[in-house]
Amino acid sequence: MNSDKLKGEEYFALIFRDDQFIFLDQTRLPNEENYIITEDYNRIAEAIERLEIRGAPAIGVAAAYALSLSIKNLSENSLQIKRDAFQTAYNRLARTRPTAVNLFYALDEIKKVFEANENAEKLYSLLKNAAIKIHEDDIEKCRRIGENGLVIFKKKSTVLTHCNTGKLATGGDGTAFNVIKRGFQNELVSFVYADETRPLLQGSRLTAYELDKNGIPFAIQSDSSAAVLMAEGKIDLVITGADRIASNGDSANKIGTYNLAVLCKYHNIPFYIAAPTTTIDKSITSGKEIKIEFRNKAELISIKDVKISRENYSAFTPAFDVTPAELITGIITEEKVHYFPYSF
Amino acid sequence: MNSDKLKGEEYFALIFRDDQFIFLDQTRLPNEENYIITEDYNRIAEAIERLEIRGAPAIGVAAAYALSLSIKNLSENSLQIKRDAFQTAYNRLARTRPTAVNLFYALDEIKKVFEANENAEKLYSLLKNAAIKIHEDDIEKCRRIGENGLVIFKKKSTVLTHCNTGKLATGGDGTAFNVIKRGFQNELVSFVYADETRPLLQGSRLTAYELDKNGIPFAIQSDSSAAVLMAEGKIDLVITGADRIASNGDSANKIGTYNLAVLCKYHNIPFYIAAPTTTIDKSITSGKEIKIEFRNKAELISIKDVKISRENYSAFTPAFDVTPAELITGIITEEKVHYFPYSF
Repeated sequence: MNSDKLKGEEYFALIFRDDQFIFLDQTRLPNEENYIITEDYNRIAEAIERLEIRGAPAIGVAAAYALSLSIKNLSENSLQIKRDAFQTAYNRLARTRPTAVNLFYALDEIKKVFEANENAEKLYSLLKNAAIKIHEDDIEKCRRIGENGLVIFKKKSTVLTHCNTGKLATGGDGTAFNVIKRGFQNELVSFVYADETRPLLQGSRLTAYELDKNGIPFAIQSDSSAAVLMAEGKIDLVITGADRIASNGDSANKIGTYNLAVLCKYHNIPFYIAAPTTTIDKSITSGKEIKIEFRNKAELISIKDVKISRENYSAFTPAFDVTPAELITGIITEEKVHYFPYSF
Repeated sequence: MNSDKLKGEEYFALIFRDDQFIFLDQTRLPNEENYIITEDYNRIAEAIERLEIRGAPAIGVAAAYALSLSIKNLSENSLQIKRDAFQTAYNRLARTRPTAVNLFYALDEIKKVFEANENAEKLYSLLKNAAIKIHEDDIEKCRRIGENGLVIFKKKSTVLTHCNTGKLATGGDGTAFNVIKRGFQNELVSFVYADETRPLLQGSRLTAYELDKNGIPFAIQSDSSAAVLMAEGKIDLVITGADRIASNGDSANKIGTYNLAVLCKYHNIPFYIAAPTTTIDKSITSGKEIKIEFRNKAELISIKDVKISRENYSAFTPAFDVTPAELITGIITEEKVHYFPYSF
């Protein structure tokens, strides 16, 4: 946890430097900025599980680096040992977060390179370069999403967002958050309401942190306050990210997103999603096929060490919901803005 | 804080016994059951402000007892001293929670008795008896609301509720919660989803506590999970309480209620409110005239001693929202079930 190396850096979710993976422990934000340096893929897997690293694109990038690192320090070099180590790491990483399609995309990209080069002397370097390429692609996709998204602002707008989709959620500058940020830089966004996003408070902890760092005027709010703002005409548009998008446009995202989409429909407010095309899972035809992760009920019963409810109470704990395509005004990708009905 | 007196009691929000006011500190539930005994109206005012006592009907009953106690121990008996002490207490209590109409109703009832009897020797007894009458009326109203509400269950139902409306929120057995409880006792309710109700978690702390005490099967959930349950066809109806109802039926209730009403409309699910007629404010024609209390942003930034966000962040913190009458299927009072369009 030596963060001297980071002096002068802007904040970031993760970087790869000198063959070391460095990430910000997001569970401690916004009150503590704790960067962790590791070469251990298992530590990265744990970080993904504990949401120290989260956000579908960031998970993909982290998993790619982790899988590369899994074979870096093998003392023996027999093919079978390499294969076993790689497959063990692959399996470990694959079971961290089942909903994020980017995770499987990234793992499979690295696996392809492994399989095509398993006898190469510089196998680790090849895997590492493939991971760096995934990271660089993500940075470029975020940049283009931010650019493409500018067309959604018809005037200087007040925007509502849910969860976190910024630099902390991606390898680059973010998806929905980057649209907001670019909008602000272009004087098209004047104010942002950030849903706190229960249970893990990615909005009031992480999005607020990023809005503050970027000097964008904002307020946090409880998730159930969104409807009042809409009824009062205070919200011009809503934009969120996505964790997985079916080929018909149905979109899985943080629990509460579907709620917002229904509220937008009722109040006649545009509802956008921004995500890289890697989030689009063409293998599934609709949201019905998306497997939804259920989180541990402890997230509703305690906050850090403070018990807010009782351990013996039951809880309903979906991590995600699915917003049907017909409620989504547009889906902003690095290619373009898609409109309903969706065909990617 | 001697709770020996309470041995053998069921749980309760408040009682008046031997000229002492006893209340349960609801901020410590569900993990600590701490009853506080006081004769000090100012302590009761503080309890209302800190939400140790909350729920519009319970606030009214508590304020009535508190105002009576304000003149109990006056050492001097000059009329002007009594008047001053009474008015000071009235003002103190009136500024605790501006949205609850029951508060003003109760204070004004006690004030009428004071003004009609200010020279009476047993003035304190007269005020106390008026407060007891307000409490008994509330108990009876809760009982009738529970009975009247049974008609809303067309079959064995799964119910969703928001905030807390049970014994902890009233002088009696509750409003919306009592409808659920009576429904369960009559085998018309099989399961209850309780919104946790951010920011103060009245659902996961208080409603869960009451559901558990009553043996009703339930799960708590984050407020933004309601939409998913509705989309999956798991919710047969939603019922909440109200803090103030305008003469056209527009209803102010805990932030998040309007959100649920919109979701119900979209998913074609009945949405009910249960409240005593004292909650109906005939002096206002619509919800636009209801003054909404804004809470301290600390409620979104910390939970107990744990900082979950940063103190320098701005927050939007309405305590209540207003659900327009046309989204409310029925309003259950102690008189009957009213249906839209409302005339009381």
